[in-house]
Amino acid sequence: MKNLYSLLLAVLLFAGCANQNNHIIKTDIPPRQPGQLSVLQLSHEPIDTVKVAIVGLGMRGESAVYRFTHLPWTAITAVCDAEQDRVEASVAYLSERGFPQIDSYVGLEGYKPLCESPDVDLVYICTDWISHVPIALYAMECGKHVAIEVPAATSLEECWALVDMAERTQLHCMMLENCCYDFFELSCLEMARQGVFGEVLHAAGAYNHTLSEYWDEYWNNWRLDFNRTHRGDVYPTHGLGPVCQVLGIGRGDRIKTLVAMDTKSVNGKALVEQRSGAPCEDFLSGDQTMTLMTTEQGKTILIEHNVMTPRPYDRKYQLVGTEGYAAKYPVQQICVEGSHRSLDAQQMASLREQYPSPILDEQLTATAKTVGGHGGMDFIMDYRLIYCLHYGLPLDMNVYDLATWCCIGELGAISIENGNAAVEVPDFTRGDYAKLEGFSYAFSDGSFR
Amino acid sequence: MKNLYSLLLAVLLFAGCANQNNHIIKTDIPPRQPGQLSVLQLSHEPIDTVKVAIVGLGMRGESAVYRFTHLPWTAITAVCDAEQDRVEASVAYLSERGFPQIDSYVGLEGYKPLCESPDVDLVYICTDWISHVPIALYAMECGKHVAIEVPAATSLEECWALVDMAERTQLHCMMLENCCYDFFELSCLEMARQGVFGEVLHAAGAYNHTLSEYWDEYWNNWRLDFNRTHRGDVYPTHGLGPVCQVLGIGRGDRIKTLVAMDTKSVNGKALVEQRSGAPCEDFLSGDQTMTLMTTEQGKTILIEHNVMTPRPYDRKYQLVGTEGYAAKYPVQQICVEGSHRSLDAQQMASLREQYPSPILDEQLTATAKTVGGHGGMDFIMDYRLIYCLHYGLPLDMNVYDLATWCCIGELGAISIENGNAAVEVPDFTRGDYAKLEGFSYAFSDGSFR
Repeated sequence: MKNLYSLLLAVLLFAGCANQNNHIIKTDIPPRQPGQLSVLQLSHEPIDTVKVAIVGLGMRGESAVYRFTHLPWTAITAVCDAEQDRVEASVAYLSERGFPQIDSYVGLEGYKPLCESPDVDLVYICTDWISHVPIALYAMECGKHVAIEVPAATSLEECWALVDMAERTQLHCMMLENCCYDFFELSCLEMARQGVFGEVLHAAGAYNHTLSEYWDEYWNNWRLDFNRTHRGDVYPTHGLGPVCQVLGIGRGDRIKTLVAMDTKSVNGKALVEQRSGAPCEDFLSGDQTMTLMTTEQGKTILIEHNVMTPRPYDRKYQLVGTEGYAAKYPVQQICVEGSHRSLDAQQMASLREQYPSPILDEQLTATAKTVGGHGGMDFIMDYRLIYCLHYGLPLDMNVYDLATWCCIGELGAISIENGNAAVEVPDFTRGDYAKLEGFSYAFSDGSFR
Repeated sequence: MKNLYSLLLAVLLFAGCANQNNHIIKTDIPPRQPGQLSVLQLSHEPIDTVKVAIVGLGMRGESAVYRFTHLPWTAITAVCDAEQDRVEASVAYLSERGFPQIDSYVGLEGYKPLCESPDVDLVYICTDWISHVPIALYAMECGKHVAIEVPAATSLEECWALVDMAERTQLHCMMLENCCYDFFELSCLEMARQGVFGEVLHAAGAYNHTLSEYWDEYWNNWRLDFNRTHRGDVYPTHGLGPVCQVLGIGRGDRIKTLVAMDTKSVNGKALVEQRSGAPCEDFLSGDQTMTLMTTEQGKTILIEHNVMTPRPYDRKYQLVGTEGYAAKYPVQQICVEGSHRSLDAQQMASLREQYPSPILDEQLTATAKTVGGHGGMDFIMDYRLIYCLHYGLPLDMNVYDLATWCCIGELGAISIENGNAAVEVPDFTRGDYAKLEGFSYAFSDGSFR
């Protein structure tokens, strides 16, 4: 009996070791439940006029209301916010602009009747990060498509919850990753797809943006609180989204492994102490966090996050290819045809004219620049979202993109808390990513380009 | 008996798991042997005229011969190379310039009589990477100080061998990391030491330099062969050296953990195939390799290596501080006083004038720029080496710096080959790094600045 016990112990311990094979930490990948179907390339019947309800009317929501008044094929039918004055301001603004009367909801639970309303096709969520997922899940339960500000989800559990809900309800669930629609990124994505850089082997992105001037603007101090209570890259999607499109992540390739490292918190901690007047010993986010990733196809990705120390704004957007190179920050550089010297500004402009993004035309570009929203990219993003819903097409970004780009935060925390161990990045498509061959946009003529 | 066997097995397996605590791979740290003593801040009696023997007269050695003819307090007394024509060319050059006759040695074993010669104080090693350490060990056995081109050592074993030999013989063993002496780096090091950037929390360096035009210039194809047979960052010291000085690595702080990731080899493999006309399936070095490190004081370091794909030359040299920021590539940027905007060129020049490097004066700067060697930095490096030997001072860089900066290559390979696991970086000072407080230069008046 004792012999058996020891043997069993040995086997169990061996299994324990085997799980740590190659020192890689794995998280659970839940099997797809009965009733769930893949939503890869999901499309719905065309919607003539997309009825949009905007939840959260603070920094991002307020500007979304404004942008939607300039979009075709859509109408704002409802708004909601925790604060009455914000709701009143949006209602008044739309009324002044001559738009039809809309429904409005106030309070933390206001999103529920909004989601239940039959007068809504799309719930557009611009609240604080931690309320994104509860609202999105409720909206999908109510049969509504959802679009969610970045980062759409803040944990692995939330990522899986959105994937599973989208698969169960067969609804669109898109993250509003606007940096995928900035002009330089759109050009370079098209060049990469046409092979201008050869095979892109490495890519880098970042959110290095000192927020010192902004901390007071977040309702209830939610952003600083989130940084205080979370480690890993808490805001990875602006850096990661655009380069994942170039690398075809979720469309032929997938992120396999991740490692994260962070500095100690000096400025974060000091900020809390300065604002609260009390000592802070529990600020989790490092002042700078780096995440390195490998992909199944042998590519690598570097993402940085720093909102705490003074440095120039920097999203990197760097593409390292076998025959060329592109980088956006701190200065735009493009190398082609095996040259290690960057083209000059005029040559770059001329090259970019040769590779226009298929989603841009003169009119959209002009309108985007007039309406604005981070120089136009917000408008182009909204336009594509509504365009695809209007024509019944797959959206540019799906719930698997959302989950892959967002899970980096918690997985990075797991890495850091385990001595910077390698952590397996789950395949949220559960194998379906291999069915596609690179990124493409859907068009009303039925083409994918 | 069987019971005992199973129990033993369980214990062994448990020990195996426990060794992988925190998933960190540890390499052996050999204890300091009897007869060895620390060489931290090692100094020798002043040498009036430093007799220098240069081994390896190819790319780096040939220019070293030229530079040494412009240095005070020194005389070239011997040269050596595998190829007779190179030796003859150096001898003829020195003769034409009117210098006294020197000893010369030809062949792969020529360094031995050179090292044994009583007419040599310092052996200056500019051979291919894999012969650095055998020559350096032999020279120290012969009682000679050594200066070794980058990377001085190519494996962990070689790093320990140099450390142990230097400690046993109590001789100087310095790596010729010239990038520590470039003008921007010298300015920023001084600014960092004066607190201009607050506490520097993160630093980045790189050797991103397409070598496509240079592969034919390496004797016997050694550099491409080395890249083919080694993984990890095979050339980390240009990126790492200058930022380690800023962070006080080996002088109050130390690198604790490392993780490396690389892309697949596409251009490297193609290069071998193109040059050999035969398929190559064993090219180990990725086209791009990234190494992330943490330090004991909660700082992080990122190092990149890419000699294979077309991209602008880039050593990064990026310092992220709590109150400021500096970066050298692709454009120089300096932020101070908490501003996230870089100073303009004129403001940067004016700031740099306020923080002159203590090792530079007008005459040295002018001579360095005239003599040249990567714009002057090679000359400043050689000058400091000879200055310190002449005045009997500790050198700017010691054998522990050499080992720490060089071990990154093999440790990175271990990380990559184990699924990007975290690997402990050995403390080559065996605890002594804590005795110093940051980087400083030694001066003839006895001061350290």
